[in-house]
Amino acid sequence: MRIATLTSGGDCPGLNAVIRGIVRTASAEFGSTVVGYQDGWQGLLEDKRVQLYDDENIDRILLRGGTILGTGRLHPDKFRAGIDRVKANLADAGIDALIPIGGEGTLKGAKWLADNGVPVVGVPKTIDNDVNNTDYTFGFDTAVSVATDAIDRLHTTAESHNRVMIVEVMGRHVGWIALHAGMAGGAHYTVIPEVPFDIAEIAKAMERRFQLGEKYGIIVVAEGATPKEGTMNVSEGEVDQFGHRTFTGMGQQIADEIHQRLGQDVRTTVLGHIQRGGTPTAFDRVLATRYGVRAARACHEGDFGSCVALHGENIEMIRLDDAVDTLKQVPVQRYHTAQAMFG
Amino acid sequence: MRIATLTSGGDCPGLNAVIRGIVRTASAEFGSTVVGYQDGWQGLLEDKRVQLYDDENIDRILLRGGTILGTGRLHPDKFRAGIDRVKANLADAGIDALIPIGGEGTLKGAKWLADNGVPVVGVPKTIDNDVNNTDYTFGFDTAVSVATDAIDRLHTTAESHNRVMIVEVMGRHVGWIALHAGMAGGAHYTVIPEVPFDIAEIAKAMERRFQLGEKYGIIVVAEGATPKEGTMNVSEGEVDQFGHRTFTGMGQQIADEIHQRLGQDVRTTVLGHIQRGGTPTAFDRVLATRYGVRAARACHEGDFGSCVALHGENIEMIRLDDAVDTLKQVPVQRYHTAQAMFG
Amino acid sequence: MRIATLTSGGDCPGLNAVIRGIVRTASAEFGSTVVGYQDGWQGLLEDKRVQLYDDENIDRILLRGGTILGTGRLHPDKFRAGIDRVKANLADAGIDALIPIGGEGTLKGAKWLADNGVPVVGVPKTIDNDVNNTDYTFGFDTAVSVATDAIDRLHTTAESHNRVMIVEVMGRHVGWIALHAGMAGGAHYTVIPEVPFDIAEIAKAMERRFQLGEKYGIIVVAEGATPKEGTMNVSEGEVDQFGHRTFTGMGQQIADEIHQRLGQDVRTTVLGHIQRGGTPTAFDRVLATRYGVRAARACHEGDFGSCVALHGENIEMIRLDDAVDTLKQVPVQRYHTAQAMFG
Amino acid sequence: MRIATLTSGGDCPGLNAVIRGIVRTASAEFGSTVVGYQDGWQGLLEDKRVQLYDDENIDRILLRGGTILGTGRLHPDKFRAGIDRVKANLADAGIDALIPIGGEGTLKGAKWLADNGVPVVGVPKTIDNDVNNTDYTFGFDTAVSVATDAIDRLHTTAESHNRVMIVEVMGRHVGWIALHAGMAGGAHYTVIPEVPFDIAEIAKAMERRFQLGEKYGIIVVAEGATPKEGTMNVSEGEVDQFGHRTFTGMGQQIADEIHQRLGQDVRTTVLGHIQRGGTPTAFDRVLATRYGVRAARACHEGDFGSCVALHGENIEMIRLDDAVDTLKQVPVQRYHTAQAMFG
Repeated sequence: MRIATLTSGGDCPGLNAVIRGIVRTASAEFGSTVVGYQDGWQGLLEDKRVQLYDDENIDRILLRGGTILGTGRLHPDKFRAGIDRVKANLADAGIDALIPIGGEGTLKGAKWLADNGVPVVGVPKTIDNDVNNTDYTFGFDTAVSVATDAIDRLHTTAESHNRVMIVEVMGRHVGWIALHAGMAGGAHYTVIPEVPFDIAEIAKAMERRFQLGEKYGIIVVAEGATPKEGTMNVSEGEVDQFGHRTFTGMGQQIADEIHQRLGQDVRTTVLGHIQRGGTPTAFDRVLATRYGVRAARACHEGDFGSCVALHGENIEMIRLDDAVDTLKQVPVQRYHTAQAMFG
Repeated sequence: MRIATLTSGGDCPGLNAVIRGIVRTASAEFGSTVVGYQDGWQGLLEDKRVQLYDDENIDRILLRGGTILGTGRLHPDKFRAGIDRVKANLADAGIDALIPIGGEGTLKGAKWLADNGVPVVGVPKTIDNDVNNTDYTFGFDTAVSVATDAIDRLHTTAESHNRVMIVEVMGRHVGWIALHAGMAGGAHYTVIPEVPFDIAEIAKAMERRFQLGEKYGIIVVAEGATPKEGTMNVSEGEVDQFGHRTFTGMGQQIADEIHQRLGQDVRTTVLGHIQRGGTPTAFDRVLATRYGVRAARACHEGDFGSCVALHGENIEMIRLDDAVDTLKQVPVQRYHTAQAMFG
Repeated sequence: MRIATLTSGGDCPGLNAVIRGIVRTASAEFGSTVVGYQDGWQGLLEDKRVQLYDDENIDRILLRGGTILGTGRLHPDKFRAGIDRVKANLADAGIDALIPIGGEGTLKGAKWLADNGVPVVGVPKTIDNDVNNTDYTFGFDTAVSVATDAIDRLHTTAESHNRVMIVEVMGRHVGWIALHAGMAGGAHYTVIPEVPFDIAEIAKAMERRFQLGEKYGIIVVAEGATPKEGTMNVSEGEVDQFGHRTFTGMGQQIADEIHQRLGQDVRTTVLGHIQRGGTPTAFDRVLATRYGVRAARACHEGDFGSCVALHGENIEMIRLDDAVDTLKQVPVQRYHTAQAMFG
Repeated sequence: MRIATLTSGGDCPGLNAVIRGIVRTASAEFGSTVVGYQDGWQGLLEDKRVQLYDDENIDRILLRGGTILGTGRLHPDKFRAGIDRVKANLADAGIDALIPIGGEGTLKGAKWLADNGVPVVGVPKTIDNDVNNTDYTFGFDTAVSVATDAIDRLHTTAESHNRVMIVEVMGRHVGWIALHAGMAGGAHYTVIPEVPFDIAEIAKAMERRFQLGEKYGIIVVAEGATPKEGTMNVSEGEVDQFGHRTFTGMGQQIADEIHQRLGQDVRTTVLGHIQRGGTPTAFDRVLATRYGVRAARACHEGDFGSCVALHGENIEMIRLDDAVDTLKQVPVQRYHTAQAMFG
C-alpha cells in the first residue's frame, strides 16, 4: 500500500510524532510506503511531495516541534476547485490512502474529499483542544505546559512588586488553554471566550485580594475573550500604512481598565508563539505517536472517511462527520468550578 | 461540615494540589473546614492532626511536590485493630467525612473503613497509574516526564559512545511508566512486568540495529520486569552485615547479559526517586486539583464509600469496590503496538 | 553584630538566595542576627522591618524567585532628604551594618550612604548584567536561559510557516541578554542598544537566508535597540485616555519594516516579565549565595563602602566607587564576533 | 586554510557547539574549510574523516548533546606509536591545523603532538571542570543544572518520608559538580574527593537536623569521595562471571553507614549518565561557541601549541603546558565556606 500524508493549518508540537508513527507503522507492520505532501493542501495541488523512509532520520523527528513537511493555509474554494488535479496527482503518485493532519478546517476538507471519493483518514490537530468528539488533541498539553511555566514565573515577580499581572494565552474561540493553565498555574481569575466577562467583577476579585492582605494577583486571559455587552469599550485598533492593525490585545485592554479602576500597577505578558513551538511534552509525544499508528492501521483496514480520536485510554475511530462543524467548548459548569479555585 | 484528609503510601507529585483543592472547595463552596492527619493512617490512630486554612499558605502548595501532611505505611492488621480508636478520634474531632488519598492499599483500607461505618471518599494516588477504573492518576504524568527527559539526554551520550544504554524506571507490578516513557523517549526496546522478557530477543533487537548501521540502542526496563522462565538466571543479591540486600537491579542484570552476548559497551541508569519528587506537571496539577474539588463535593453530597476517577474528560464518582482488588495492567495488545514503534 | 539588608529596584531571580546567604553566614559563622527592611529604601525610611531567622523558612527561599522582602523604587532626592530618619532608624534598631542589594541606582544610593557615615556593603543585582567591574550578576543567567528556551521553541514554528520571527528581550541600555540568548539560541541576527542598527542590513541578512534556500529567520532584538540615524522612522506611540502610551515596541517596528521590504510573513514575540521571574538557574543560585556569604563576611571584617563582585572564579570586594557611574556595555568587538555566528 | 577537529574522551554537552563555532568562523571569517576526524584519536590514526560544511546541518547541532563526530579513548602509547601515520594522514588530507577537543588526557596528547611538530590548538572539555587555568569548561554548567534539578525533586520526597537522601554525582577526582550542585540544591552536606570525609561527622550533621525538628536531610556525594583513613571500611566490590565488578558506589556505602548509625531511613540516587547527555544549557552553548570561534581564529593567527581558556569575561589563549599535568581542584577554603551553608 502507498500512503500519503500532509500537515495543514497552524503548526503544533507533535505533528512530527504523528508522521513518524504513520511511517514506522506502515513500514514495520504492513511493508507499506509513505510519501509526504509539503506545505499542506497547496502541496497536494502542486504535487510537491517527498518520500518518507523508515530510517534514523524519521526516528529523530519525534522530539522536534513544527512539521518537517511544512504547512500552509488554503482557501476552501481554491481547494475544491482543484479536486480534479488532486485526484490526478494522487493517482499519478499511486496513492492508496491520504492522511491529512489538521484542525477543524482541515478535517472539513478531508470530509469533503472523502465525500468525493478520495480514501481519507483524518488526524485531528489543534493546540486549542477544540476538535469535537476527542478528549485531547496533541499540542494542547505542550501549550498548557509552556503557559503554566510562564505563570509560575510571573507569581514571584508580581508579588515582589505588588502588581496585578495579566497573561494572555492562545484561544481565539475556546478557553481550554486558559482554563487549564489558569488552574495549573494557580491564577486568581481566568477569562475565556465561552463566558463573556464582566470587568467590574474581575476588578472586584483583585480588590478583594488586596483587602485580604494579598500582595498581587494573576489573571489569565484567552486571546478571544470578550466583555459582556455594554460593560467595556473595546478597541479594535487602527490600520497602519502597511495594512497592519496596531491592535491592542484583550489582555492589555483589561489591564488598562483594572489599572484605571484600582489604581494598581498592572502589567501584561502576551505569550504568543512560544506556546506552539518546540519539543512536545511526553504526553503529547505519546498521544501523537498513537494517533499516527492508528491512522496507518485504519488505512490498511480500509476504514476511510474516518478520523482518529482519544476516548479515555483508547484511540478509537470516529466518522469525520462527528469531528467537524462544532467546536468543543469549555462547559460553563466546568468554568465556574475552576473559577472557585481561582479566588 | 468538618472534613478530614490524609495521605498514605509513597509520595507523589500532586498530593498537595489535591489537599488544596479539598480545602478551597470546602471553604469557598460550602463554608466547611478541613483538618489533615499527619503521616498517613498512623496519624489518624495517634490523633496527630493540623487545621488546614484556606489562605495564602494553602495556595502556595500547588507547585510543591511531596505532601505537607507527611505520609507513611501501616500494616493493615494494625490499622484494623485500631478501628475503635480511629472512630473515637474522628468523633472527638467532630469529623463528618474522611478523604484518604492513596494507592490500592490505602483505598482498600478506605473501603474497609466505609464498610465499618466511617463516611469515606477515596482519592486514588499512584505514580504507577495502576488503580483500576480510572484513566489516569496524578503523579504518573510527572514520572513519565522526568523519565522521558532522562531518556532524551541518554540518546546523545549513547550515540557518541556507540553504547547500549539501559534505563530502569519505576513500576514493580505494572509497566505504564516504562511504556509511556519508552514511547515518548523513542526507546528501541521496552520491558514491562506484564510481559516476561526473552533476553535473546532483546539482544537480537540491539544486534539488528548495529547491523543496520545504527550506533546505539536505548532500552527502557520497568523495575519489576521478569524474564521468561528458563531464559535467564536472575540474581536475588546477597544480604550484607546491616541486613541490606546488595541487590543488582533488573536493569543491570539485563545490561550484563547483553554485554556478554554482543560484546557491546552497555551502561545502566537507575532513575529512582527523582521520578516521584518535585513540582508536578501542568497535567498533574489540573488532574489533582479536580480530584480534590470533586472529593470535597462528594462529601457534601453524602456520596460515601466512593472514590473519584477520571473518565475521558470528566471526573466521576465510582464505588471503592471498583477501584480495588485488581491492578490496572498494560494490555498486552497495547504493549505489542508500542514495541513495533521501538524497533 | 546586627546586620540589615534590603532589596531595591526591579526583582531578579537570586535575590532570595543572597538574603539566605547573608542570614546563614551571619548566624553560623558569627552568631550575628539579621533584619530585613521591606519594599526597598522606602521601608528603611518608614522603618518597616522583619527579623530574619536562620531556620527552615530561610532555607526554602533558595529556589524562590522574586524577593521575600518586597522591593520598590524611590526617587534619590526623597531618599537623600530622609538621611536623618534613615540614620535614626538604623540606630534605634541597633543596626551595625547595612547590605543593600540592587542595581546601579541602588549602589549609587549605597555609596552616598557610605559617604554619609553609614556602614554599607553593596551587592550588585541586575538582570541586564550591566554593573561595572563584575563578570556576572545573578539573574542574568536565568533571564538568558528563559529567553533561549523561548528562541528554541520559535525555531520550529518559524520554519514550519516560512516566517521571520522577531524576539524582543530585555535590555534597555545594554545588549547582554540579547547577545547571549541570540548566541545560545542560534539566532540569525541580533540587535543591541550599543550598536545602532541598519534596517536595510537586517533585511538583507534575512533575504540572503531565503535565497540560500533557508525557510526562516530568527532575529533577537533588545528592547533598547535604536536605528542608525536617518535609517528608519521610529514611532513613539500615543498616549491614551488613562495616560498609557500605546507603544509599539522596537521588535514590532522592525517586524513591520522587514515585512514591508521583503513581503515575508514576520511575527513578533515580546518575552517581557517571564525573563525576570521564577526559580533561578543553578548558576544564579550559586552566584547569589556566594555574594550573600561574602557580603556578610565583609560586614564582620569592617570592610564598608564596598561591594561584592565576581572576578573569574572568585568573589572579591571592590569599592562602591568602582561599581557605579558607568554601565558595563557589550564591547563592539564582541558583538561583531557574535554576529558572524548569527549569519 | 584547512582545519581538522576531533573530539576525544567522554562526551560532554557543548561539543557540537564548539564544532559549529569552528566551522562557521573558519568559513565566514576566513573562507577556510574544516574536516572532522571520527571517534577521537583513533579516527585520526585510521584516517576516518568527514567534511564539515557551513550549512543548515551544522547550524542545527548547536542544541544537540553528544558529538556528531563520535568519540573514543586511546591508550597514549598506541597514540604515540602512531605518530608517523598521524602526520602522514594530516599531510595527505592537506590539513594545516588540528583542533583536538578533550579533557586533560586529550590536551596532554595535543601538547605531545605540538612538541612533535603538529600545528595544534586545544579546546578544553570536561564535565568535571578540572582543567587547569580556565575558569569554566563547557558541559559543567549543564551537569550542575541536571544534578540540581534532581536534588530539587528529592527534597520533597525526602521530607514526605522523613528520610536521609543521598545523591551521588559525577566527579572521580574533583568535587566541582558536587560543590555547585550541593550549593544550588540547598543540600545539607556535601562530600568531595579533595577532602576525605569523616562518616561520624556526616552522621552527626544529620542527627543534629533531626534534633532541631527537621524531617529530612540531603547529602551530595561526588563519586570519587573517600573516607579519612581508618574511619570507614570501604567495599571494593566483587568481580562477577562476566568480569563486571558488582561495585557498590560510595553513595550507597555512606547510606548504609548512616542507616546503621542513626537507624534512619536512607535512600540513594545515582545520577549517572544523565549528567553528561542532552541539550546544553544556554551558558554552555555560549561558552562552547566562543571556544570554537577563538580556536578557529588562533589557527589562522598561527598561534599553535596553545589552548583556549575562559578568564573572567574573556576567552584567552594559554599555552598547552599550562593546561595539563595538574587538575584544578576545589580549594579547601571554598569547600568549608560551602559547608557552612549546607548545615
